[in-house]
Amino acid sequence: MKFSIVVACVAVFGCSLPAGAEDGYDLWLRYRAVEASFNRSLELSLQELVKSAGSPTLDAAGAELLRGLAQLTGRTIPLVGSPSGAGAVVFGTPASSPLIAGLPLSLERAGREGYVIRSLHINQQPAIVIAANSDIGVLYGSFHLLRLIQTRQPLIALDIVSQPRTQIRVLNHWDNLDRHVERGYAGQSIWDWHKLPSYLDPRYTDYARACASLGINGAVLTNVNANATSLTPAYLQKAAALADVFRPYGVRVYLTARFSAPIELGGLKTADPLDPQVRAWWKAKAGEVYARIPDFGGFLVKANSEGQPGPQDYRRTHADGANMLADAVAPHGGVVIWRAFVYSNESPDDRAKQAYNEFVPLDGRFADNVLVQVKNGAIDFQPREPFHPLFGAMPKTPLMMEFQITKEYLGFATHLAYLGTLFEEALDSDTMVKGKGSTVAKVVDGELHGYRMTGMAGVSNIGADRNWTGSHFDQANWYAFGRLAWDPGLSAQAIAQEWVRMTFSNDPAFVEPVVTMMMRSREAVVDYMMPLGLHHLFDTGHHYGPGPWVNNLNRADWNPTYYHRADTNGLGFDRGPGGSNAVAQYHPKVATQFADIRKTPEQFLLWFHHVPWDHRTSSGRILWDELVHRYTHGVEVVSQMRRSWAGLGQYVDAGRFAQVNAFLAIQEQEAQWWRDACIAYFQTFSKRPLPAGFAAPAHPLEYYQALKFPYAPGR
Amino acid sequence: MKFSIVVACVAVFGCSLPAGAEDGYDLWLRYRAVEASFNRSLELSLQELVKSAGSPTLDAAGAELLRGLAQLTGRTIPLVGSPSGAGAVVFGTPASSPLIAGLPLSLERAGREGYVIRSLHINQQPAIVIAANSDIGVLYGSFHLLRLIQTRQPLIALDIVSQPRTQIRVLNHWDNLDRHVERGYAGQSIWDWHKLPSYLDPRYTDYARACASLGINGAVLTNVNANATSLTPAYLQKAAALADVFRPYGVRVYLTARFSAPIELGGLKTADPLDPQVRAWWKAKAGEVYARIPDFGGFLVKANSEGQPGPQDYRRTHADGANMLADAVAPHGGVVIWRAFVYSNESPDDRAKQAYNEFVPLDGRFADNVLVQVKNGAIDFQPREPFHPLFGAMPKTPLMMEFQITKEYLGFATHLAYLGTLFEEALDSDTMVKGKGSTVAKVVDGELHGYRMTGMAGVSNIGADRNWTGSHFDQANWYAFGRLAWDPGLSAQAIAQEWVRMTFSNDPAFVEPVVTMMMRSREAVVDYMMPLGLHHLFDTGHHYGPGPWVNNLNRADWNPTYYHRADTNGLGFDRGPGGSNAVAQYHPKVATQFADIRKTPEQFLLWFHHVPWDHRTSSGRILWDELVHRYTHGVEVVSQMRRSWAGLGQYVDAGRFAQVNAFLAIQEQEAQWWRDACIAYFQTFSKRPLPAGFAAPAHPLEYYQALKFPYAPGR
Repeated sequence: MKFSIVVACVAVFGCSLPAGAEDGYDLWLRYRAVEASFNRSLELSLQELVKSAGSPTLDAAGAELLRGLAQLTGRTIPLVGSPSGAGAVVFGTPASSPLIAGLPLSLERAGREGYVIRSLHINQQPAIVIAANSDIGVLYGSFHLLRLIQTRQPLIALDIVSQPRTQIRVLNHWDNLDRHVERGYAGQSIWDWHKLPSYLDPRYTDYARACASLGINGAVLTNVNANATSLTPAYLQKAAALADVFRPYGVRVYLTARFSAPIELGGLKTADPLDPQVRAWWKAKAGEVYARIPDFGGFLVKANSEGQPGPQDYRRTHADGANMLADAVAPHGGVVIWRAFVYSNESPDDRAKQAYNEFVPLDGRFADNVLVQVKNGAIDFQPREPFHPLFGAMPKTPLMMEFQITKEYLGFATHLAYLGTLFEEALDSDTMVKGKGSTVAKVVDGELHGYRMTGMAGVSNIGADRNWTGSHFDQANWYAFGRLAWDPGLSAQAIAQEWVRMTFSNDPAFVEPVVTMMMRSREAVVDYMMPLGLHHLFDTGHHYGPGPWVNNLNRADWNPTYYHRADTNGLGFDRGPGGSNAVAQYHPKVATQFADIRKTPEQFLLWFHHVPWDHRTSSGRILWDELVHRYTHGVEVVSQMRRSWAGLGQYVDAGRFAQVNAFLAIQEQEAQWWRDACIAYFQTFSKRPLPAGFAAPAHPLEYYQALKFPYAPGR
Repeated sequence: MKFSIVVACVAVFGCSLPAGAEDGYDLWLRYRAVEASFNRSLELSLQELVKSAGSPTLDAAGAELLRGLAQLTGRTIPLVGSPSGAGAVVFGTPASSPLIAGLPLSLERAGREGYVIRSLHINQQPAIVIAANSDIGVLYGSFHLLRLIQTRQPLIALDIVSQPRTQIRVLNHWDNLDRHVERGYAGQSIWDWHKLPSYLDPRYTDYARACASLGINGAVLTNVNANATSLTPAYLQKAAALADVFRPYGVRVYLTARFSAPIELGGLKTADPLDPQVRAWWKAKAGEVYARIPDFGGFLVKANSEGQPGPQDYRRTHADGANMLADAVAPHGGVVIWRAFVYSNESPDDRAKQAYNEFVPLDGRFADNVLVQVKNGAIDFQPREPFHPLFGAMPKTPLMMEFQITKEYLGFATHLAYLGTLFEEALDSDTMVKGKGSTVAKVVDGELHGYRMTGMAGVSNIGADRNWTGSHFDQANWYAFGRLAWDPGLSAQAIAQEWVRMTFSNDPAFVEPVVTMMMRSREAVVDYMMPLGLHHLFDTGHHYGPGPWVNNLNRADWNPTYYHRADTNGLGFDRGPGGSNAVAQYHPKVATQFADIRKTPEQFLLWFHHVPWDHRTSSGRILWDELVHRYTHGVEVVSQMRRSWAGLGQYVDAGRFAQVNAFLAIQEQEAQWWRDACIAYFQTFSKRPLPAGFAAPAHPLEYYQALKFPYAPGR
């Protein structure tokens, strides 16, 4: 019978089906019918939905539950005013539902944004309650209940309590007003500014749904390389229209603030943060913003970095600049998020040291509603970096984590690289500043220093592409970021499993190999691009392909040669006491480890040390041989991933299967290119043969040096 | 029963259905189930599909028939090797099918690309035959059969013969290699150059299907403002991958040729078309192109216009330049399409005259495989222009028509403007050069002058947006272009009806009002933007909103004031003998008409004449009053369109209904803006009050002059 319906559906309507072409638009909110046996187990628990007194957010929760449960179970679950018997699902807050107010739920455990999901009895009948202290908590809990079903967990004896460990969980969209996305590999910006505010693309709602399903509660709409035009009345009206769409889903709008806006928009002669006119201009502008967007989150600012204007243009500090903006938004409850990613106009002895040097002296000098947003590493979202030394070094300043979800430096959209492991590695890093276990996660969630505010930002990989993120697997990185922002203690592997089950299939024959692929994938990128602590080997003008030979750019620290320092003696950047001494920015216990070539984790070897070519590595191989081995291994892992996926066609719809296949073929080809180009180049210094059994690069070095990609996306 | 299947389909699979959200991706190839009664009438005629010996094109025809017939009828029609009884649909060529070779089809009527669809008997059993002299003709005929069903025409006594009246039916994509589409309002370019040739987006196939369904047989992939990089080996490989996808659908790839490519790519010191090295370079380049793309169509060239390099840089003529390229592609069967849209670097007395002045002296001097592509009017794709005086003036040179499908000057994606009427008006214009009835259509299809080649080009409105064209109704303009390129004699109204039926619904209660909307829509744009022959009143930096006041640009003919010439005496550009005498470029019979203010069709009044404000128009109103009346009428028609659509919700899926609603609201708002801004401005010259009953502009002139749109799309 089921089969005949499927056939009729295909034949009559040409609609997409599990076995047919899918396009990834549904993301992980893919509510395909569960198997009959599991469905039977749900039946008694899901008889009716009991709604609360309405609010847009509770309505969104009800709509999501109705839609999700109907599609997952194939039954229409009626929405009723009060439980009529067994199997009620009750959702709401004590304020919205006297029924919930009367239940023993210990809601204090849920905090302001969290929720409780409990199996209990109402009028002697079994029921499930999704309850929270706030409407948004109810929506978060509703997505959790759906996730349980999507991942095939029995709805038995539920007693789930969950609340977020960070307060500001925000996507940073580096989106320009002309819809170009800087470092975007998924098409144009989803914000169609030209048609806003009049046309509200249904995608805006689906974006907010997806964010809410993870607990993401903010979106910085505009690029950190900011454009003052986004603060003009016309654009504030557009942003307000988005905020109206997002509000029921708990997603607050933030904007980037161009520091020189008082000059560009206000006609002032200065943007000096201590100038009274400048301060008045920003106060008035903040008032204008909040008049249109009452729950506006605040401003994100990139100042005095990569050509952006900032307070240092007026010999003021970052704190002066941040506090001036903080004053402007404070009366409205807004925050200022000030980025620590700075580098000065003069070439430093070690760019890795600059943010620490500039910001640590300012600890304690920022206003109460300022957070400083710090990238996970001190350079720039490389495939692997040691944790940023600022974490643990600013106890009086709330530090937000800034992760990059978009794969600027990890192969763009076509390379499968699950970043859950990268995020996890950074969060689990131990700063040691309050003894062992002083992890970056505990800095970020405020536990270590008792921060008054906490947050995590992810640089978005979302665009107008049908599948949102440019590739199906890049959806997992949005997902992993959101889940870790909610709970930095989750494991990357558990998140991957959850995502695969929701997005593709619960069949263990699919889940197991795909999770394995994902868990190995980022390490493979590290290996085929820049193993052993190498970093920033990209060619000029894009971050797509290899250019370790580039040494002709104006600033020393724009050149890959600055970072790898290959010579006939060896390879790597000496950041120990005999070199730039960047290690001294870490807690002494960490510094001691990183300063000692024998104690440095091998994955950071060339980050911290200039290592002789014949240095013996842990494998027993000398550095040169190990380098070749790692590069080659990275390519081999991709080949294995490709073969693994190719055998999984029976579990996946044809559309997504084919695209992943095609992208893995590209990744394999480009991994080989990276490996060959880097080996060809570094061999000119090592002057050693490749170890036995390892193939020489396919082309001479000049071939790789001649490749140019003037139209690589995302620039 | 049908209803229960629908419900099951929604509940179990969440798939889209006729009554649910649609997104327009299907275009007019929307094979939704026909009504039961019509379906019964089809049953006897559609029992089995009889295939021919395979070729990729015949396979595509079979696949389309299988897919289309299954979805339209809800039955799977078996594909068999020979007819087994009544109701066979036989498709093929005499070469591919001995059965077809033996049937009395008079296939000579079908020509090289056409087809015959006939009801006849095979083995005494009724059958339908789709036959052609070429495989592509069979594919075209297959789409025709499906169109018959989509538009609910009975499959009885069929005797259809159709062949195209032009040979080259080509889309011009003004798409850059970074995926920006110049004058594109539907998102990024559909050509994802970065992922080509490795990843072949399924959209490429659907693009080719859509083109083939109309008989479009070529695609110029790249912008006429050309980039030599598109001719490098890497990009030729990418273009070849697209050509491979398109080939079964009869769509040949063309590229734009940057005239200075021999310098930029070849390292030569000159691009002089008479230089032997330059000629050798192009010959070698053509060889390289054809080695990769054996059926490459040829080069499209914009030279010595708007800053593009060209033969005049070396004191050579357009013919010298075109013939040099023509020599290069001739051995491979390629053509050169040379654009007549030129304007010199010096400001002319009348820009409208330049193309004629430059090209007419070259008539007869172009090589046999050169076509000259002429825009429908002499300025630039304005909402209305009189026909280009080159049509009829170059009997020895094949002139291709260049229409603009993308609405650069007609409100971008959000204004509903059906261009079938614009195309029809241009094609039906009478050049009079061989007496009455010497229409532009007869120039273009070669009948008038016996051209050795013929063609029609449409500047594409296609992008990566889900609905392809940025709005649902803009799909109709792609459709209308394709149908008119096949047969310039078709009526715009018939095409609109066909398109509405295929794309939305056959319900007369829907078809009638929607076709009425479409047929009035372009005239409404003319009225609210630039009625009575006004043209080019756009503000600086975009072609989005009004800027009739702009008079500060470097070149006289970049300023709207150059075109409308408003003063206290009157309005309009005197192109008569007392003015620029552009009328003299037309045949004397036409020129006489246009030169006489009393005989000039009122729609071109201000195009050809500087008219006193108190000139009495055909309505009895003086010019000023008539101008206000027309501007206001344009807005009113849009309001009527909006109300009309708002009442049609029951016939349309919610997704498309909502977007059209939202866009019509934008159009109404922007029509009012155009009307108010232009009236406010022209009133400063007419110094007359608005006629009684007409509302004053909502804002003072300064308000409209201050509006800026730095990020309007498509620039």
